[in-house]
Amino acid sequence: MSREKDFLDGKKSALEQLTKATSAKQVDSGIQPILNIINNSDEFYTTSSCFGRIVILEIPTIGNKKEAKFLGKWHRSIELNDLLSAIKKAKEGQLWILSQSPIIHITAISDYAADKILKIAIACGFKNSGLKSIGKRIVIEILSTERLDAPIGKNGKVFCNNEHLDLLVKISNEIIEKSTLKLKKLEKKLRKGLSI
Amino acid sequence: MSREKDFLDGKKSALEQLTKATSAKQVDSGIQPILNIINNSDEFYTTSSCFGRIVILEIPTIGNKKEAKFLGKWHRSIELNDLLSAIKKAKEGQLWILSQSPIIHITAISDYAADKILKIAIACGFKNSGLKSIGKRIVIEILSTERLDAPIGKNGKVFCNNEHLDLLVKISNEIIEKSTLKLKKLEKKLRKGLSI
Repeated sequence: MSREKDFLDGKKSALEQLTKATSAKQVDSGIQPILNIINNSDEFYTTSSCFGRIVILEIPTIGNKKEAKFLGKWHRSIELNDLLSAIKKAKEGQLWILSQSPIIHITAISDYAADKILKIAIACGFKNSGLKSIGKRIVIEILSTERLDAPIGKNGKVFCNNEHLDLLVKISNEIIEKSTLKLKKLEKKLRKGLSI
Repeated sequence: MSREKDFLDGKKSALEQLTKATSAKQVDSGIQPILNIINNSDEFYTTSSCFGRIVILEIPTIGNKKEAKFLGKWHRSIELNDLLSAIKKAKEGQLWILSQSPIIHITAISDYAADKILKIAIACGFKNSGLKSIGKRIVIEILSTERLDAPIGKNGKVFCNNEHLDLLVKISNEIIEKSTLKLKKLEKKLRKGLSI
């Protein structure tokens, strides 16, 4: 099969999955307009995305994602009380707070198209963006640099006082706010840059 | 100029810079064998690298790297005392501890070569690797997933007790140890995969 035929088959299947996920409210609404712009272009389709999130996790060792247990997850800014309610549930292993910026995976029809969308993403501040594959399928990851990955307790004991937790909430929210601004900029630039 | 001529000119200049940096002891010795393997291949050259590091930073706001002040920096595992000596110097702004895994930037002569080295890196656990550019110059970034980015104080005040700092040291060191193992694996696979 040609690369173009693969692309068209892949796009059909990805859009069907996106429609199902949207119906099941599994797609972050804040990122939906950007997905629409990308998927309306003949050169691209999206395969996965996240608006950005703040999470509280318990994990036995770093990188051991399979064993991770979510105690809290928000696709929005949080209050100290949100954090306090989540960390109350801590029992065993390392307790972490993570604040993650948005991530979008996109398949492109050509190297030229991939380079174009990569340049737009980097210009909008998504400086950790890159191509994950240029073999049979060309996959772009749009990703920003801001993040917080902080261990805050162990085996049910939280090490931080409220002043420290307040700082963690403030910085986590700043990451979400910065992400929102960058996504708005990206939406505007993609609307212009991907128009036919 | 052709892409090949650009590549050869770029390689000549990059290797001259690397020789100067090595003489000035600015290249992390732990990563030198990998740089040699890559630069000995006709298909690649390296442009920058870091073995991985643990740093203590003071910054006014997140992402504001220009204003960041280094209070401590180590390309090795650390002891609690190293951390305590560094955070004593804290004065103003947010105080962070970061533990960062290795990073290597490589230019490739072709898409085929880029895809080959990217697949090797991902197979060795450098799962955040990707291509940063596929235009005139093909640039690969080799990068792992483990990291710690934790705010630990503000305006000269450290929020963590020694039990918390101990945990941060332990996790930071685990990241350096995991990185060292991954680099060894990468060295072995590159030695095999890039042989002519």
